[in-house]
Amino acid sequence: MLRLYDNHLSGNGYKPRLLLAHLGSAYEAVEVDIMKGESRTPEFLARNPNGRVPVLELDDGTCIAESNAILHFLAEGSRFLPTDRLSRALILQWMFFEQYSHEPFIAVARHWICHTGMSEAQRAQLPGKHEGGHAALAVMEGHLCRSDWFVGTGMTIADIALYAYTHVADEGGFDLAGYPAVRDWLVRVRQQPGHVPM
Amino acid sequence: MLRLYDNHLSGNGYKPRLLLAHLGSAYEAVEVDIMKGESRTPEFLARNPNGRVPVLELDDGTCIAESNAILHFLAEGSRFLPTDRLSRALILQWMFFEQYSHEPFIAVARHWICHTGMSEAQRAQLPGKHEGGHAALAVMEGHLCRSDWFVGTGMTIADIALYAYTHVADEGGFDLAGYPAVRDWLVRVRQQPGHVPM
Repeated sequence: MLRLYDNHLSGNGYKPRLLLAHLGSAYEAVEVDIMKGESRTPEFLARNPNGRVPVLELDDGTCIAESNAILHFLAEGSRFLPTDRLSRALILQWMFFEQYSHEPFIAVARHWICHTGMSEAQRAQLPGKHEGGHAALAVMEGHLCRSDWFVGTGMTIADIALYAYTHVADEGGFDLAGYPAVRDWLVRVRQQPGHVPM
Repeated sequence: MLRLYDNHLSGNGYKPRLLLAHLGSAYEAVEVDIMKGESRTPEFLARNPNGRVPVLELDDGTCIAESNAILHFLAEGSRFLPTDRLSRALILQWMFFEQYSHEPFIAVARHWICHTGMSEAQRAQLPGKHEGGHAALAVMEGHLCRSDWFVGTGMTIADIALYAYTHVADEGGFDLAGYPAVRDWLVRVRQQPGHVPM
């Protein structure tokens, strides 16, 4: 059976959890207590030398790290990852956007505010995190004004990747009032049959 | 003909340039002067609302942004992107590692030091950039001690993605002396037939 090393607070971990629910795939969830250093033990680092959750372990012990790579692996052959070359490229475009221009701002601000308490240095960086996060939300708003989904005519793993931290952006101090198309899209994702909350 | 909107100093732009050379694909290069704001004009934002190079424009005007998504699109059907599901997942794992755990440290330190001059705030963040970059290099070293390439038995787009900024890490203040396996791998990449310098 698939095994998912994960932390229940992690939006990156929520991505494969949400996709696995949509796929109806059984898996064993293994909670990793990041705050207690469980993602830095020799056993965990053997699974992901980069020391981060989530990690997907296959039946033969092979491990796949990086939430969006896990999504891509799991979605292969399903409606959440179309087969045509251009759609796949655009899905990856939005997933790399998520990891480079969205997560480091919105997820990190949420993590500092909700989970770790802020150091002085982090407090000084928070306005920059909010500026970067709002820039990402503005890019999403512009796209979602013209399209119900990020790629094509149905929900794909690009939507799942971007939903994970956008739907809890308020916990990072982001007000979504100025992004009506993003808010409508969040409702569309949540209303898909098979949806599970974080 | 393919058109690549790019900046000659960008390692992210060098990724598709290097792959296109290996593939022997003709393309038109369009230099975008980032320092003069050319990636923020209405014309450019119509191609990539996130305002970053590189952008690949197809014959019909369709644009693909994000360097690693462009690599994935271009490599489809070539030896640089194997067809089996697990190899593809592991390639994406390393490419997401590159964009999240490597580029924001090594490329950003290089950009500050070589291209923009450092503000006081950036100077204060430089030790953190070096710490994060060395953590990424250590993960790469651990992998390359056991394997010539990041995935499988030949160079893939995972290697191209990671080569782009690793081979100029010294310009960001990173000494690679402590990473002999990384240095050997840089030579292997450089010695591939069809290689072009940045």
